[in-house]
Amino acid sequence: MDCLFCKIIKGEIPSVKIFENEKIFAFLDVNPLTEGHCLVVPKQHYENIFDIDKEVLKDIISLAKDISENAKKNLGATGAQIINASGKDAEQAVFHFHLHIVPRYLGDGLEMNKWWQSKAKNLSIEDLRKTADKLLK
Amino acid sequence: MDCLFCKIIKGEIPSVKIFENEKIFAFLDVNPLTEGHCLVVPKQHYENIFDIDKEVLKDIISLAKDISENAKKNLGATGAQIINASGKDAEQAVFHFHLHIVPRYLGDGLEMNKWWQSKAKNLSIEDLRKTADKLLK
Repeated sequence: MDCLFCKIIKGEIPSVKIFENEKIFAFLDVNPLTEGHCLVVPKQHYENIFDIDKEVLKDIISLAKDISENAKKNLGATGAQIINASGKDAEQAVFHFHLHIVPRYLGDGLEMNKWWQSKAKNLSIEDLRKTADKLLK
Repeated sequence: MDCLFCKIIKGEIPSVKIFENEKIFAFLDVNPLTEGHCLVVPKQHYENIFDIDKEVLKDIISLAKDISENAKKNLGATGAQIINASGKDAEQAVFHFHLHIVPRYLGDGLEMNKWWQSKAKNLSIEDLRKTADKLLK
């Protein structure tokens, strides 16, 4: 399979690895949002959150917590963000499941909430109830 | 404790609940980015990824996968995003751990990558290795 992350895991494409065990692999993002921005991926090729094995997903979030703590302790981060995109319409770019860990710093300038607030709607409880009825049907 | 999400969990502030068990609670975001945008939170008050119990965190990501699948099946979502912000400098707004699940749809207009690409740097493997050395020390 012609998958960028499968090649990185196999060492066919260079990366800066920060963790590896039998099931998961973590490496620094070559286009980081902040210092220490990394990706945690399953070694087995799953495309996204829809097809990934739940136990592997749990291992991945557990490592994300450890890495966030390390970034705080060793890089001076004062916060962290966890981000996943699953599916082309979710703007996923590489179709091998990956969880971004983005250490955050005072004055790092990301201003994600500026983007967020420009997109968020303000709905009533009644509007939301219609969605919940559909979601839970 | 004067915590918005603790009050929502206790029913003191109205919300549209979509899941509840002994440990976790999920409800629709009243300022959604897309239809079905919801929050999964621990019932016990943890502030963020740094202090949350790992087992609870695993339960939360597991439910996030289930909800993503439901949004695909019942709302017609074609993708999903998972987002957490931990810490004031990560632009966390409510200091009770919460994982956003944002169902994504063709043409939903979020354009997160426009924001992302405006902030990302382009680093060399050598630059990244310095960060890894600090992170793993």
